[in-house]
Amino acid sequence: MIGSGSFKIQTMSKAGNRAAILECISTAEEIARVDIAQATGINAATVTALTSELLDEGIVEALMDEEKQNTKRGRPRVKLCLNPKAFNLAGAKISEDAITVAIIDFAGTLLSEHMQKGNSFAIPKHKLAANLKKAISVAVDKAGLHIDDITALGVGIPGYVDIASECVHWSPALSDTPTNFVETLRATFDFPVMLDNDVNLAALAEQRFGLGKGISDFLVVTIEHGVGMGIVLNNNLFRGTRGLGGEFGHTKVQLNGALCRCGQRGCLEAYVADYALLREADTAIKLQSANNLPTAQRLEALYLEAKSGNQAALSIFERAGKIFGMGLANLVNIFDPSLIIFAGERMQFDFLYEEDVLEELRRNTLQIDRAPPKVQVHKWGDLLWAKGAAAWATEYVIHQAAAKNNES
Amino acid sequence: MIGSGSFKIQTMSKAGNRAAILECISTAEEIARVDIAQATGINAATVTALTSELLDEGIVEALMDEEKQNTKRGRPRVKLCLNPKAFNLAGAKISEDAITVAIIDFAGTLLSEHMQKGNSFAIPKHKLAANLKKAISVAVDKAGLHIDDITALGVGIPGYVDIASECVHWSPALSDTPTNFVETLRATFDFPVMLDNDVNLAALAEQRFGLGKGISDFLVVTIEHGVGMGIVLNNNLFRGTRGLGGEFGHTKVQLNGALCRCGQRGCLEAYVADYALLREADTAIKLQSANNLPTAQRLEALYLEAKSGNQAALSIFERAGKIFGMGLANLVNIFDPSLIIFAGERMQFDFLYEEDVLEELRRNTLQIDRAPPKVQVHKWGDLLWAKGAAAWATEYVIHQAAAKNNES
Repeated sequence: MIGSGSFKIQTMSKAGNRAAILECISTAEEIARVDIAQATGINAATVTALTSELLDEGIVEALMDEEKQNTKRGRPRVKLCLNPKAFNLAGAKISEDAITVAIIDFAGTLLSEHMQKGNSFAIPKHKLAANLKKAISVAVDKAGLHIDDITALGVGIPGYVDIASECVHWSPALSDTPTNFVETLRATFDFPVMLDNDVNLAALAEQRFGLGKGISDFLVVTIEHGVGMGIVLNNNLFRGTRGLGGEFGHTKVQLNGALCRCGQRGCLEAYVADYALLREADTAIKLQSANNLPTAQRLEALYLEAKSGNQAALSIFERAGKIFGMGLANLVNIFDPSLIIFAGERMQFDFLYEEDVLEELRRNTLQIDRAPPKVQVHKWGDLLWAKGAAAWATEYVIHQAAAKNNES
Repeated sequence: MIGSGSFKIQTMSKAGNRAAILECISTAEEIARVDIAQATGINAATVTALTSELLDEGIVEALMDEEKQNTKRGRPRVKLCLNPKAFNLAGAKISEDAITVAIIDFAGTLLSEHMQKGNSFAIPKHKLAANLKKAISVAVDKAGLHIDDITALGVGIPGYVDIASECVHWSPALSDTPTNFVETLRATFDFPVMLDNDVNLAALAEQRFGLGKGISDFLVVTIEHGVGMGIVLNNNLFRGTRGLGGEFGHTKVQLNGALCRCGQRGCLEAYVADYALLREADTAIKLQSANNLPTAQRLEALYLEAKSGNQAALSIFERAGKIFGMGLANLVNIFDPSLIIFAGERMQFDFLYEEDVLEELRRNTLQIDRAPPKVQVHKWGDLLWAKGAAAWATEYVIHQAAAKNNES
């Protein structure tokens, strides 16, 4: 719980109540009206009235729960769920070499997925929008749908995205930043498009489909080319008060330390990201014929060297692990989270979550008589990021649907 | 705005609406019903009904606004304010050498203040409770009140306070931690008592009475014996998801760095707090006859040495300033706040917010085409901390009053 003991205030509005009910049903997957009232704090009569509207509008569906008969009233207890057919949502994750698309229904079931190779970084926004359009068309086809069947699209892009001003301040994916890429996407598609930093959508994916399900506050830390962080507080993504927070990879772990891609010194990323490990490897280790290979394979080669006992290789991972543990400890000292999820594709590199890291984390956090936060590893590829992007489109649609019938 | 673009959900309840209305009136000081509806999103009819209850209960008062006549309806536009006489609240700040008490009315006006010298740190909880009782009695007398006129008491104590479990894990003020000090306080007083970390209440003081007024998200950084941080997000104190966050002073700025009071190495505090500066001074500088003086005067002497050109003294402040700037940059990279307030008594030591610090802050934060966060200095003594503690008691009372007439 956030700010436990500070006295939180919640106000009413019909749209707000409809949205709360839809979110509640979405989270629970299926739930009886009485439990909705319990979970949301909305009174039972209002829940009945509003769910009746939502049923009429075809946004929500009634299921019979055969196990729990409400015998007192002589009629079955009805559970509600989102009507999967109400909306179809698309989500896309933009990576260096591919665009991955997920199409989901309103209940979150995956209808199709498509990974389109051949994307590249640092391209003009119109070209990226065209690549995206192509990838989404294929995914829509695979789902047996028409492009007009899509209600909204969420897109995750690496870099600094200020969603309030819609400005992509910088992204490795685009050659023409700062720019309003959302505008380009809106001109490309006939449905609403939402763009966000990819790690924020990874956090949303963990919340909707992953280890963060049912957990109101957690941190997601990703290690790919850089180090990213998604922050979920009180069931909402926290993007920083001005929209550009969560830059864990660029928190400083050393005054005048190692040089980072961003041009500053001492960033955490400059000690633990792939380029940081490989530039050290270049100095002291001959990775057999690995120098022309892609980053992932060079890292793999370095990792094998370390495993086989190469002390220099070992020391690279050892320092990275220690610095990573110290950086994580800073997050714990600031957020005191109940859960930290290490997520992403590269998490196979054990060094970043082995005992040493957790020990360094423990050593550097407030020592009180209480268990340290739970740390869980969740390995996954681009599809889950894409599903997170689609989940964001789902949130948008829920709030549009909630506001549609708003009179008060 | 937090999580702008994530779709926030607010639910209704009568108590929640009453609380929102009271908080709105409290923040605005005086406000018309129509503006309450506007600010809270609660519909006008509900605002009218609930404020009418609150007026009947004597919690809210009507003021005539003589300037703005609502000529169309031929009657004056009525503004509402909290009834100052509805409740009296006490707040106390526990320091090393004193207990400072503030008595305020329900509208936040200071009725009396009292600083009782002679407290000391590391004493048993029963002794501290007795000191507190004495200090509060005097303050209540000064306000022309009786102890039974007090509705609630807020207490700010340095250290690690988990308000959910009511455990004081550690505090320099107490000799018998971990302990449930709230229980002792409840046995001492006949009204509800709330205990929290003092820096959290400093943030509340800034929100209610200081530079944070009307600002939904900001950070308060204090430098006293240690380095503290209060975090206000979405108008609420954020205490960390498990109640023990905001430990900015113990974030690590150097792997295996300087030894901290907490026993760990590399904490920010171990570079910038008073003891950190003075232990360096002890090594290299002869502070003329200053060694037997209290901490504040020794620091003053060191500062004068630096001002007069002593290079060793200068280098102490220089390093502290750089590390402090780097630590602040980490907060900016994580929270992207709109405002950082440097608060507290010792802020007279210019070095901690002079150009160097701000330059280091700027150098280490995300470089985009946008102004860096605003940094403001707010010098104040223990009274404002005490008022913050009383403000916390006010929040409690608002929510008690809001729930009193709750039917739905």
